Amino acid sequence: MLYLSNDDVDALLDMTGCIESFEHAYRAAFDGSAINGRRSDMITATTRDDNAVYSLKMVGGVVPGSQIGAVRINSDILSFPTDEGRTRKVKVPAAPGGRWVGLIMLFSSETGEPLAILPDGVLQRMRVGATSGLAIRYLARAEASTVAILGSGWQASAQAMAAAAVRPLSEIRIFSPNHDNARAFAGDVERRLELPAKAFQSPEDAVLGADIVLCATNSLQAVFKEEWVKPGIHIGSIRDGEIDPGALLKADNIVVHDPGNMGSDHLVVAKGLDHKEGRKEVNSDPRLAAIASAPSLAALVGGAASARRSADEITCFLNFHGLGYQFAAAGAALLARARAAGRGHQLPADWFTQNVHS
Amino acid sequence: MLYLSNDDVDALLDMTGCIESFEHAYRAAFDGSAINGRRSDMITATTRDDNAVYSLKMVGGVVPGSQIGAVRINSDILSFPTDEGRTRKVKVPAAPGGRWVGLIMLFSSETGEPLAILPDGVLQRMRVGATSGLAIRYLARAEASTVAILGSGWQASAQAMAAAAVRPLSEIRIFSPNHDNARAFAGDVERRLELPAKAFQSPEDAVLGADIVLCATNSLQAVFKEEWVKPGIHIGSIRDGEIDPGALLKADNIVVHDPGNMGSDHLVVAKGLDHKEGRKEVNSDPRLAAIASAPSLAALVGGAASARRSADEITCFLNFHGLGYQFAAAGAALLARARAAGRGHQLPADWFTQNVHS
Repeated sequence: MLYLSNDDVDALLDMTGCIESFEHAYRAAFDGSAINGRRSDMITATTRDDNAVYSLKMVGGVVPGSQIGAVRINSDILSFPTDEGRTRKVKVPAAPGGRWVGLIMLFSSETGEPLAILPDGVLQRMRVGATSGLAIRYLARAEASTVAILGSGWQASAQAMAAAAVRPLSEIRIFSPNHDNARAFAGDVERRLELPAKAFQSPEDAVLGADIVLCATNSLQAVFKEEWVKPGIHIGSIRDGEIDPGALLKADNIVVHDPGNMGSDHLVVAKGLDHKEGRKEVNSDPRLAAIASAPSLAALVGGAASARRSADEITCFLNFHGLGYQFAAAGAALLARARAAGRGHQLPADWFTQNVHS
Repeated sequence: MLYLSNDDVDALLDMTGCIESFEHAYRAAFDGSAINGRRSDMITATTRDDNAVYSLKMVGGVVPGSQIGAVRINSDILSFPTDEGRTRKVKVPAAPGGRWVGLIMLFSSETGEPLAILPDGVLQRMRVGATSGLAIRYLARAEASTVAILGSGWQASAQAMAAAAVRPLSEIRIFSPNHDNARAFAGDVERRLELPAKAFQSPEDAVLGADIVLCATNSLQAVFKEEWVKPGIHIGSIRDGEIDPGALLKADNIVVHDPGNMGSDHLVVAKGLDHKEGRKEVNSDPRLAAIASAPSLAALVGGAASARRSADEITCFLNFHGLGYQFAAAGAALLARARAAGRGHQLPADWFTQNVHS
């Protein structure tokens, strides 16, 4: 039973390895051997703050070809501050030391034994990036070389890494409402990816001439506008609402991460907190109905949905919500590397198994 | 972050404390403040054995009044041996050292932080017993003094403890197909509960004259027969199929643990394993339809379903499947005692929280 830190994950798991592990897992999911459990989000009161709620989430999945099952647990205090009439959802770092709580446990599908426990932050960022990267592999033009990133945060950098892992990039163009952040991010991208990166003062300028546009923001308002759509572009989004519905309507080929994962069946909300539920991110545009019937990334990878068909096709990938088997797939890759590198702390294995069964 | 062993749980958590914690939790569930997540069972192939499958289960729940959220994970290799034409489901102790894997994690609903991790075996047995005990408190005659237990295994002893915790017992009557097991169990019950306990050669003899009959077997065939039903009896069962459907039809007042928990929506089975799914315990009797509309234990505790109405009423409690908030409730009681007693191993808290969020 191995404990791995976020630093371990950062040192061990690279974007290319993560994308490869996902390609295998999506193919296995398409053929029905890899599966996701039903995810569940539980929302209750917390006495911490009248305007906050407690959120306990679980997702799980198994990739038997990699001999790994995974469960991810998030335990968050959510608050809902209102700024200038708009309500944001904020994860409060309420754990001791001002910290957050997300954990992944990996299990052997051969013996049942727990193999590892780790915080989810670094792997989660890598997961979101690798998912976008896998979609780019199938949907962007083969010669796509210019990427625009809208956003400069935690997720944006993984999006840049993912695009660079699957296409021969020559330039990364960045826009963030905070130009200093955009410039710092550009410098970081240049160093990490050894690619020219430039911060722009307006999103239009960043998007202009880009073959691929990746939205990676915290915005609940559309950041990619309808008028920026042009033939041959690939547009990606990691959050419902980032892309203007008008732009979505112009797309020839939309793929979603998993249509079965886009509803709200997973949500169980304690009585009296229904008003908080209404504040979660939901794209209420009626055109979402069409998107819900779009093919999944598993169908795309498995060959049942069309990859890019022409140089002019407008493609779009909506990368919403994690899937349990992603944590199993990335976890298997991570574990192999941790063992090879001798990284992580061993916990007493007997602590996490037992001589009785229930 | 506390690690507790099964020995710690055994030393710390008593049946009376567990029943009290449940009574509070069911009341909170009835008023809507405590909730269960959607449970999920994932079944895939395992290369261990062609006739075996891998099963990864997750359940979760939150009792905000106790400031605890809980997730329980079971990671099992299941095999399906056939003896004399009948197929049994066996949990294979496939983890190193011939061990099984079930874990509970407890989280603070005030800070989100993980508070404890522990194997689930001892708590699970206590949980099943305490659930039956809570039902006995509401459904058995107040002066019930004689209990028959059908079964002599791991769960049977918790059923005896539970009945003794809520009724002034004078005698425990035991039947098991293996009489040596029944006698050993009787001796154990006498020592533990300081009550007369007797092993019988036939189930009829054990049941004869008992005010309460508790079935706690691994049998997939009915062990409690229709002709043993008599006025005023309370019948309990921990497994679908233990009670003859004819006996269920004679009951005046049936309460189930949670009707929402009795379907198979939670089951996700990898392609090609459907034949294994068919082998799980399912009561296919058409009369199950009526049982599925029976009130829940939460409704009983909350006052929306009738407790015993007369000395002659025939009552029945079907204690199938765990509920996530039970692990939170028992976990809160356990944690309070572990802290008071200074038991368990402290793990580095920072390992299980993080300075990033996802």
